[in-house]
Amino acid sequence: MKTYLDCLPCFMSQALRAGRIATTDERKIKALLDDVGCLTKEIPMENTPPETGDLIYQKVREITGIQDPFKQIKKQHIHEALALYPKLKQIVNDSSNKLLTAIRIAIAGNIIDLGVGKEFDILEDVNRVLKQDFAIFDFEEFTAQLEKAESILYLGDNAGESVFDKILIEELRKPVTYVVREIPVINDVTFEDAIRSGLDKVAEIVSSGSSAPGTILKLCNDDFLYRFNHADFIISKGQGNYEGLSNVQRSVFFLLIAKCHVIANDLKVRENDIVLKAN
Amino acid sequence: MKTYLDCLPCFMSQALRAGRIATTDERKIKALLDDVGCLTKEIPMENTPPETGDLIYQKVREITGIQDPFKQIKKQHIHEALALYPKLKQIVNDSSNKLLTAIRIAIAGNIIDLGVGKEFDILEDVNRVLKQDFAIFDFEEFTAQLEKAESILYLGDNAGESVFDKILIEELRKPVTYVVREIPVINDVTFEDAIRSGLDKVAEIVSSGSSAPGTILKLCNDDFLYRFNHADFIISKGQGNYEGLSNVQRSVFFLLIAKCHVIANDLKVRENDIVLKAN
Repeated sequence: MKTYLDCLPCFMSQALRAGRIATTDERKIKALLDDVGCLTKEIPMENTPPETGDLIYQKVREITGIQDPFKQIKKQHIHEALALYPKLKQIVNDSSNKLLTAIRIAIAGNIIDLGVGKEFDILEDVNRVLKQDFAIFDFEEFTAQLEKAESILYLGDNAGESVFDKILIEELRKPVTYVVREIPVINDVTFEDAIRSGLDKVAEIVSSGSSAPGTILKLCNDDFLYRFNHADFIISKGQGNYEGLSNVQRSVFFLLIAKCHVIANDLKVRENDIVLKAN
Repeated sequence: MKTYLDCLPCFMSQALRAGRIATTDERKIKALLDDVGCLTKEIPMENTPPETGDLIYQKVREITGIQDPFKQIKKQHIHEALALYPKLKQIVNDSSNKLLTAIRIAIAGNIIDLGVGKEFDILEDVNRVLKQDFAIFDFEEFTAQLEKAESILYLGDNAGESVFDKILIEELRKPVTYVVREIPVINDVTFEDAIRSGLDKVAEIVSSGSSAPGTILKLCNDDFLYRFNHADFIISKGQGNYEGLSNVQRSVFFLLIAKCHVIANDLKVRENDIVLKAN
């Protein structure tokens, strides 16, 4: 997905939110916003938004000196999600279509996103998403391709959401490789977060090699690119991965909540719609 | 009021909204956002936000070539407000405290603000504000000082709101000078808009000499400054005028709806609260 004009003020808002989480020093936050403001000029609109996100969160780290502002928040979200895990498993086991229910739960977990600046209530949102109609529902294609697949490449998104991903991975019943960010960016899931979420029990965990808050192929390492190019089934979670991959010529299933109106418009759905989309 | 960190992303959002109203040429809007983004660096946080607003809307005019992007919208709002005028007069005449009801109506008119980026419904908002409790209510001081005043300086805010101001001016029962912006900025009331609102029937109309979307004394002309320094009663409408004058050592009555959380915090009220505040 290209950068839209609406993304530009949003970059400033994201920098402000991240700056405030990293430090209470208003001069540092002002310096951060000064830099991010001037960055706009350098951004080709053809770039995907997470490419700019990568630059913004680099600046957050440089200017505030804090490498992982969201560390405690991520721990807390994983802790909360793990507490919900038995209940979520029960919901899957009690349902008539376990795979579909697990997909809904994995999508519901996508509400745990600190890049967007929306308030959320995990339990309330899970209950809503479990009942919500899909705006895009390529489930038939998903199950058909899944059946033929020998293994699955699963692109993780946020910490906490990662526990919800575990629920889906357990229903895929194929070998899964779970992809995390190389270093912390926003509340995106890293290797450490994935381990804390228990994903090592159900998947091989690998890094994309990138610090961008989304999958930007040109920023990923060779190991990931090999896996991406040779995978026979790819699941991409969340907005950042969609933004990075929506124009890539590769079969990918996007699972997400369209939390921002720009992405909703790009997908031709409404804000807060849930999506299971075959690329 | 100083510039808060939250104002910085908001400047970008304002530029985007104004740019979109002025032109459909995305390259021009991008150029506008590039310039406004870099402006952040130049803004001392001690400046009031309308000083930056002034620079932003200058850039809107320069880059898009459109001198008054909000011209048609302002006409429409004045037209709608004039259609409501008889009903509003009836509400005042039927009320037990005509002055207070006229103040409420003048404050309700402050909802017609295109700088903030909120949707509004004039009639619905009038009805709400007529019943709403004041968060700050210096009405006793207002009436006491009004009684002693020989004349009133009334600082207008938005076009359309100007018709609501007329209702209040008619209840003040003193000679009123109504102050407008020198040239069009956002949907702020200009001389032409004031005439169209019928204010020439009830007040002398003068310009502040400034194109800022708020009263910034250092940007005003000598005539206005003389009037401001010698007035024995000053009414200031809306957020922009509050932002410009909140730290000025002068008795001013601020009438406004706190439509943005930054201004609400500065006033120590909640968003959407209504305010009649003696400086």
